[in-house]
Amino acid sequence: MNRKISLTGIKPTGIPHIGNYFGAIRPALELAKDYEVRYFIADYHAVNSIKDPVLLKEMVYEVAAAWLSAGLDPDKMLFYRQSDVPETFDLTTILMAFTPKGLMNRAHAYKAQVQENEEGGKDPDDGINMGLYTYPVLMAADILLFDTNVVPVGKDQKQHVEMTADIAQSLNHVYGKELLVVPQPIIGESTQTVTGLDGRKMSKSYNNTISMFLPRKQLRKTIMKIVTNSQGVDEPKDPDTCNIFSLYKLFAAPEQQQALAERYRAGGMGWGDAKQELFEVMDNYLSPMREKYFEIIANKPGIDKILKEGSEKARVIAGRTVARVRKAIGVNTFYV
Amino acid sequence: MNRKISLTGIKPTGIPHIGNYFGAIRPALELAKDYEVRYFIADYHAVNSIKDPVLLKEMVYEVAAAWLSAGLDPDKMLFYRQSDVPETFDLTTILMAFTPKGLMNRAHAYKAQVQENEEGGKDPDDGINMGLYTYPVLMAADILLFDTNVVPVGKDQKQHVEMTADIAQSLNHVYGKELLVVPQPIIGESTQTVTGLDGRKMSKSYNNTISMFLPRKQLRKTIMKIVTNSQGVDEPKDPDTCNIFSLYKLFAAPEQQQALAERYRAGGMGWGDAKQELFEVMDNYLSPMREKYFEIIANKPGIDKILKEGSEKARVIAGRTVARVRKAIGVNTFYV
Repeated sequence: MNRKISLTGIKPTGIPHIGNYFGAIRPALELAKDYEVRYFIADYHAVNSIKDPVLLKEMVYEVAAAWLSAGLDPDKMLFYRQSDVPETFDLTTILMAFTPKGLMNRAHAYKAQVQENEEGGKDPDDGINMGLYTYPVLMAADILLFDTNVVPVGKDQKQHVEMTADIAQSLNHVYGKELLVVPQPIIGESTQTVTGLDGRKMSKSYNNTISMFLPRKQLRKTIMKIVTNSQGVDEPKDPDTCNIFSLYKLFAAPEQQQALAERYRAGGMGWGDAKQELFEVMDNYLSPMREKYFEIIANKPGIDKILKEGSEKARVIAGRTVARVRKAIGVNTFYV
Repeated sequence: MNRKISLTGIKPTGIPHIGNYFGAIRPALELAKDYEVRYFIADYHAVNSIKDPVLLKEMVYEVAAAWLSAGLDPDKMLFYRQSDVPETFDLTTILMAFTPKGLMNRAHAYKAQVQENEEGGKDPDDGINMGLYTYPVLMAADILLFDTNVVPVGKDQKQHVEMTADIAQSLNHVYGKELLVVPQPIIGESTQTVTGLDGRKMSKSYNNTISMFLPRKQLRKTIMKIVTNSQGVDEPKDPDTCNIFSLYKLFAAPEQQQALAERYRAGGMGWGDAKQELFEVMDNYLSPMREKYFEIIANKPGIDKILKEGSEKARVIAGRTVARVRKAIGVNTFYV
């Protein structure tokens, strides 16, 4: 039986941090157990905010190398770059004609910007470009091109998949219900929230992240910055309210977790020791990926080759969808 | 010396009427005297309103055959179909990131729709799809792809060319001023207004048109419907206030015009005679085009072949532009 198709878009944001790894990368790669998985780097989406060509390229290479070193196997999984599949933009333009403007007005990301502008006494659309505003249509094309059944998303992106479903249904209504596969969002049930250095959720905007591929020395130095309370060495400590222990659980085996928790509760262990324990398990967990990462990122033509090969496979699927939609709307496809 | 490049977009609205011919087709073809001329059928634009695939195809064939029979020479002039140049949609998507939403809000066509909605007590964006709203960005891509210097437009389209110039300048500002050619609108100085059957401007919305390729009998029948005043045969008549004479001037030589004007003023000529005179010159003028049209429209694969060959030439130019822009923004072009 054919497995359902899952599609994951990857923002080219450079080297991911630990929060990205546990919150997005690992769960996305685990989908391969249940789905036919497809991954793409959404570089055209990124042009909305990144207007520096050198930076954009670097971000794409870094994020590609990160996913490859985290276990994305391009021989078994479709992995491509959005810009290498120009059928995306063809379908985007078609979908515009089937997307009510009112739908876009309701998009959370756009509404948030408008609210911010209004609160600042500015024009509601101040600083908003059409790339941001039409983002949900481009995302709909990304999804619909690949006959995607499910899209794993965070809660904030759920609405975009629902909009995609609306747009697909609109075409299916006009041209026949078999034209486009209507996708569904799947929201990670127990998406792990990863604690940052200061105890808040790990996030670039809080400047409290631990980058995935920090070299040993820098990793240790960064871990030593984790904020703790002022308890002395002798005092018994509570692992369940400790930022160090919260991170430790992500990297350590259950026995290790239990052993360290006991040391916490017994007293006599200082924060420095706990941080050292965290460093050991973290380095142990991350170093194989780190090694792979530096090997991959050192060979950018190799990354291009992987993405190019993926894109060639992706274009076969995408080309079929676009030809099908074009035929439905009454437009010949001569150029393929 | 290289001639400047002129680009004309053609809406697939089916067989043109006499008003289209004198107001748009003939002036556009006359540009070939001064410019390197390029023409394309904007079929993706049409999807915003035409959701019937059979109708859309028919409209495209008809308008292509009309322009070909009116003198568009595909051996000397670039003639292609928008949908056959998918680079258009790639560039459209890029341009979105450089188009302020505020610019789109100011587009006349959009504003007119909003006003109509508001006057009708509806939601401002009621019935407006994203294809209509983003139309100026797609049009900007159409223009910028071909290093267009001038775009001949009616007054109502002038704003779109100005928006295109704004968007081009925005990219040039970020990535270097040589990236995109900034186009200028040229407004037909003395665009002929053609009188319709009822004396108002000839327009589909008034249902007062004379189709370009009416067979002889139908043409005569249609001309006989031209509204006149109730003057009797014997009365002297004023050619300058007569709907028949207004049309006659478009088709007759100066000597013929003078001769008929004298018959008007002398009295003794009934409206039926004047209509017969009009029919003779009109049929004389139109019949060679009509013959060509029916020959061309009878051979749709032939039209496809012409458009396909044009599109292949167009894609060479368009591909260069897209590759240049992609390189500037930091996106490799592997897929060509």
